Amino acid sequence: MKIGIMGFGVVGSGVGEIIANSPDGLLSRSGEKIEIARILDLRDFPDSPFHCFTKDFQDILNDDQIEIVAEVMGGTKPAYEFTRQLLLAGKHVVTSNKELVAKHGTELLKIAEEKNVNYLFEASVGGGIPIIRPLYSSLSANELTDVLGILNGTTNYILTQMIKAGESFEDALHGAQEKGYAEKDPTADVEGYDTCRKIAILASLAFGKYVNSEAIETEGITKITLEDVAYAEAIGGVIKLIGMASKAKDGVYARVCPAILKKEHPLAGIDDVFNGIMVKGDAIGDVMFYGRGAGSLPTASAVVSDIIDIVKHKDKHIRLGWTEGTPGYLKDGAEQEFRFYIRLTGDADAFRRSGFQMIPFSGKKVQKEFAVLTPVMSGKEFQKLCAELKQEHEILGTLRLVDE
Amino acid sequence: MKIGIMGFGVVGSGVGEIIANSPDGLLSRSGEKIEIARILDLRDFPDSPFHCFTKDFQDILNDDQIEIVAEVMGGTKPAYEFTRQLLLAGKHVVTSNKELVAKHGTELLKIAEEKNVNYLFEASVGGGIPIIRPLYSSLSANELTDVLGILNGTTNYILTQMIKAGESFEDALHGAQEKGYAEKDPTADVEGYDTCRKIAILASLAFGKYVNSEAIETEGITKITLEDVAYAEAIGGVIKLIGMASKAKDGVYARVCPAILKKEHPLAGIDDVFNGIMVKGDAIGDVMFYGRGAGSLPTASAVVSDIIDIVKHKDKHIRLGWTEGTPGYLKDGAEQEFRFYIRLTGDADAFRRSGFQMIPFSGKKVQKEFAVLTPVMSGKEFQKLCAELKQEHEILGTLRLVDE
Repeated sequence: MKIGIMGFGVVGSGVGEIIANSPDGLLSRSGEKIEIARILDLRDFPDSPFHCFTKDFQDILNDDQIEIVAEVMGGTKPAYEFTRQLLLAGKHVVTSNKELVAKHGTELLKIAEEKNVNYLFEASVGGGIPIIRPLYSSLSANELTDVLGILNGTTNYILTQMIKAGESFEDALHGAQEKGYAEKDPTADVEGYDTCRKIAILASLAFGKYVNSEAIETEGITKITLEDVAYAEAIGGVIKLIGMASKAKDGVYARVCPAILKKEHPLAGIDDVFNGIMVKGDAIGDVMFYGRGAGSLPTASAVVSDIIDIVKHKDKHIRLGWTEGTPGYLKDGAEQEFRFYIRLTGDADAFRRSGFQMIPFSGKKVQKEFAVLTPVMSGKEFQKLCAELKQEHEILGTLRLVDE
Repeated sequence: MKIGIMGFGVVGSGVGEIIANSPDGLLSRSGEKIEIARILDLRDFPDSPFHCFTKDFQDILNDDQIEIVAEVMGGTKPAYEFTRQLLLAGKHVVTSNKELVAKHGTELLKIAEEKNVNYLFEASVGGGIPIIRPLYSSLSANELTDVLGILNGTTNYILTQMIKAGESFEDALHGAQEKGYAEKDPTADVEGYDTCRKIAILASLAFGKYVNSEAIETEGITKITLEDVAYAEAIGGVIKLIGMASKAKDGVYARVCPAILKKEHPLAGIDDVFNGIMVKGDAIGDVMFYGRGAGSLPTASAVVSDIIDIVKHKDKHIRLGWTEGTPGYLKDGAEQEFRFYIRLTGDADAFRRSGFQMIPFSGKKVQKEFAVLTPVMSGKEFQKLCAELKQEHEILGTLRLVDE
């Protein structure tokens, strides 16, 4: 079985390494020898052990011997057009490209079905953690109700440093960049955009209808302070950046936000660059998946597992995917209910509201500020509350509480 | 698609409930309507909503319309003979029967392959947690090196009660029986036999060659005391019953034993009746799966996911399984190295051995006893050490330390 690789960056070179280093192992698991026939990349790799590089996409598209292509170039241009053409030409495509799956997955999956080939994307969420396949396969006997995950290793590393080492956001980000966990421009990670694409893919797959990532309310971690971390600790919680999606009566809720998780929550113990994804189903209850959510070999191993799956199911379309979204299916997030954490200026002793829980602060004494947990309320009610509080207080920070 | 169910106990009735309650959901996921045509059970169920009971196995075997049978009766007699005949007759079989898979899986999988049908057993390990399918599918790009799991909910509940509520083993067992978590005769759980069958299945699948559960060194939790729990706590650990299998140079190690896990270990936080399974691979690093390892609906949902998988891949043998075991493949466990915990009588102050770590005891003061951690040594060396120590001390308890 000859395959092509498009993009020879972090993931692409990992795919090459796994296939080149374990031909026998892959052979026995897939039932066929897997051989890399072409690698597309605009750069030169004079020291690479591979000698099948090309700069011309047509060399892959028109090579009838190549039946499977790993698209690991990222971005939507030209990945979208390339993938479309490959599927239309009857080739299978596997990808780690979350941006492309989140944006054009509906169309690409439809083309794959029509052409009786496969478009698989296990590597697009959670790196090497098996999550896509369990969602459409192992958990298929369940009506799924919630998907909740720590889906971005960079932000989880930063938050872990803030919580465990007491570093400020800026220092933790700087450290992450030095370790190679964060990019020079960390926007996509710290603003939650990466998590957003991943939860959009998970929500689409879990609940069966397309959820557009661009419509998901997304909040990053740049405003989290060490005071927030200390107040969270005071109520037995930790702050994590969470992508979440829940089935509602006539649609779904989806959002990305930093949230306080109580320490008993299965996701609360997931630290550093690890990812964890929790799925709730009517029969199974809670299931959680945990592992390295990024990195060359973990992500590449997920790409290769998709390749092996296709080799095992040649000439067979694997049923997975979702239907087109419909207006109103993604519900207004302001209707979703939570308990909220608010940190605000003023005198705690003077603050008296029934149903509110004052949070004792054991960190370094901060004058004239305090924090409370609200009763359960909708986002809309919370906005109203904040508007009202602003007349007497400055609001220094807000977070949702994810209780279980 | 018509199916048969053999055994209408806890799991079988769950399978019936899931299929009966969500015909549309299952329909869309499998592409075909799934209908229960026959249920085999020797008992009568006059109040059941199902009216297709039979006491005669031939009614299922000879019904050509039944293409898939769920064997959820447990035990090997008559499940082995029934399963064999069904596979030989060209029917697919899915099962939750760990005893049968651990004992006769090699033969049954071979028959399934020869007859181009499937013998699937996702429900045999970890209840509803997806673990079997990830092992042969999502993680297929990895050379797996270790599988480590809390695989029995009953014993994990008992240990959690001992650790968190300070109950003795006997009290915790009694409580588990009252809650329906433990059977009247708890031997299979508390002596580790249930865990042993499960780790045998996981080891066979992960490393590709049959591991006979009857040859696996197995130790239960009946000897664990609250003193052991307190010493474990003193070094930042918890005691868990672990099934473990590791690839070695020319074979595998496998064992079931109570072990001290440091609290940073991903399995350390898995409490109550939950199960957790950790898999290590060369590319992925550590992955963990967590969820309800038992119970009617979780286990039944795994059975139904296998049924859906078969409906999706009709006329197709799904490649999974292992080859026959070979002599010496399961290595002598006494060669495997660990750090050991020993609790023994005598005077801690007089005990001086280099490389040993004294464990400070913060629990209620116990006269004339203390505990140490040994350096890394083989089981054989540990036996020798114990023999020597017995000349001056009584050995009150021993455990392995699982460090990561």
